[in-house]
Amino acid sequence: MAGRFIVGVMGGGEGASAEDCQAAYRLGALIAREGWVLLGGGRPWGVMEASARGAREQGGLTVGILPGRTRADACDCIDIPIVTNMGDGRNYINVLSSDVVVALPGQAGTISEIALAIKNGKMVILLNFDVGSVFDLYRRQGLLTSADTPEDVVALIRTWQEA
Amino acid sequence: MAGRFIVGVMGGGEGASAEDCQAAYRLGALIAREGWVLLGGGRPWGVMEASARGAREQGGLTVGILPGRTRADACDCIDIPIVTNMGDGRNYINVLSSDVVVALPGQAGTISEIALAIKNGKMVILLNFDVGSVFDLYRRQGLLTSADTPEDVVALIRTWQEA
Amino acid sequence: MAGRFIVGVMGGGEGASAEDCQAAYRLGALIAREGWVLLGGGRPWGVMEASARGAREQGGLTVGILPGRTRADACDCIDIPIVTNMGDGRNYINVLSSDVVVALPGQAGTISEIALAIKNGKMVILLNFDVGSVFDLYRRQGLLTSADTPEDVVALIRTWQEA
Amino acid sequence: MAGRFIVGVMGGGEGASAEDCQAAYRLGALIAREGWVLLGGGRPWGVMEASARGAREQGGLTVGILPGRTRADACDCIDIPIVTNMGDGRNYINVLSSDVVVALPGQAGTISEIALAIKNGKMVILLNFDVGSVFDLYRRQGLLTSADTPEDVVALIRTWQEA
Repeated sequence: MAGRFIVGVMGGGEGASAEDCQAAYRLGALIAREGWVLLGGGRPWGVMEASARGAREQGGLTVGILPGRTRADACDCIDIPIVTNMGDGRNYINVLSSDVVVALPGQAGTISEIALAIKNGKMVILLNFDVGSVFDLYRRQGLLTSADTPEDVVALIRTWQEA
Repeated sequence: MAGRFIVGVMGGGEGASAEDCQAAYRLGALIAREGWVLLGGGRPWGVMEASARGAREQGGLTVGILPGRTRADACDCIDIPIVTNMGDGRNYINVLSSDVVVALPGQAGTISEIALAIKNGKMVILLNFDVGSVFDLYRRQGLLTSADTPEDVVALIRTWQEA
Repeated sequence: MAGRFIVGVMGGGEGASAEDCQAAYRLGALIAREGWVLLGGGRPWGVMEASARGAREQGGLTVGILPGRTRADACDCIDIPIVTNMGDGRNYINVLSSDVVVALPGQAGTISEIALAIKNGKMVILLNFDVGSVFDLYRRQGLLTSADTPEDVVALIRTWQEA
Repeated sequence: MAGRFIVGVMGGGEGASAEDCQAAYRLGALIAREGWVLLGGGRPWGVMEASARGAREQGGLTVGILPGRTRADACDCIDIPIVTNMGDGRNYINVLSSDVVVALPGQAGTISEIALAIKNGKMVILLNFDVGSVFDLYRRQGLLTSADTPEDVVALIRTWQEA
């Protein structure tokens, strides 16, 4: 299959906690060290910003799928801004373009990404994110998994790649 | 504001239960009797088909936002097929085009619609659909409500229109 | 095939000439009298507004595919506002949802619609619109035709429907 | 402004001439040597394939905005496949994501990209592509320019960057 391995990292925006941003930053760094591409929503806040910054500082490549009409909206840690002007419609492109999706705690936007990822057969890893029972069917099918640390996320992806 | 009042009805596709399809059919009929437009995913199965058929048989107007490239995919109860060729990306258009969204039991696709609706400030009514705790924040904010019958859904929408 | 027959009318926005708006108004009225649905960009100016007003005043049904995030952007002659929040990306939905596309004089936006319509096998009728030689191949293939009056447009569509 | 400089290269698909593919290949190589990112439609034929291959062989980074639902559709010269499942709707994303658009000879799809680029204020360079008079207004405004060789295209972009 053509192209580099892409990990999508989703999660809260302006309201993200310091702890979640720290985990996102570490996860971005680990993704870069693996040689994987980091993909996210590209905006300059919360999990999007922290994960991209983490990847960037390790020399990783970062892709941001932007909701607006210009790359001026992008976080300055983004190497490749993809400009959609589709608002939240771009969430669908986020997940289709990711080989695996990692979701940190977030609100309705993040939940829409988990749902669209699962609907399209993508493996989703929840990092410290309790989504209740709504996706239990998919958890049983093995499409949805939980992890406690960024290190666990990377280990899960590696296992899955080797499978 | 221009245009007719539009109620979006979302829910399960091929796997929808007979009971849910019956509720969808009744809801469609009630929406038509109120003079509201019914909007849905437009495909010929499950909640999409049943709600459109219910509305159609009462002389209501039905709009289907289609995922594929041609109107040949539409349920024959659809008056106005909107052809997007966006796959599940059209879920975003479904909710943005609805004045209120009603969700019957469904899987990941339906959950993505609930999430996108809430994210964009739309009132969502769950009809016999248990989504666990994932949207509790929005329930407390009054964006998300539950109803037991199609009649209750219509009463809720009326109250909301008069507010 | 499900659904009503839909004629897409495209053309200039704020800069449209009085003459073109008059032709658009007349075309909208004729479309309504045929019992066809009028579909357009839905905004309150130029060819979009004039064609929708013409159809509306004859009791026709009007659909507007809106580029923005809310139906508040719609011309008040639109019955069914479809809200995409996709900007000019909605031009693709305009043409896919039309059974036939009529283009009055316009700028780059209108030309993108002609090109996308042709690319997707839709018959396009140019009403008093000189596009130079760029689409000559498609004119020879019969996908692109020219007309001088709204009456001619309707006659062409009727012939095509009967074929 | 965040991110690397991105040059979009558009043009014919399966029917592209050997001469145009050769020019696309050379253009891709020159873009890579400048350190710019090459962006295109990502499919394995015509101008899309040739330009990506040219860039790839010089160690450049290539982005493909794919119309389908999976990266399996991508040309194997693409580093970063962006999966939209939007069909030709992705043409809008192609041009919004490009800092400048170069169009080689193509059919309706390429013309839609030129039109959408111009509509959104992007500078467009036609490489040996005669589009007739349809975009003359934009040529006078300086948004549309013509070039005879890939070298001329690169010189034009450099001049424009320094302005």
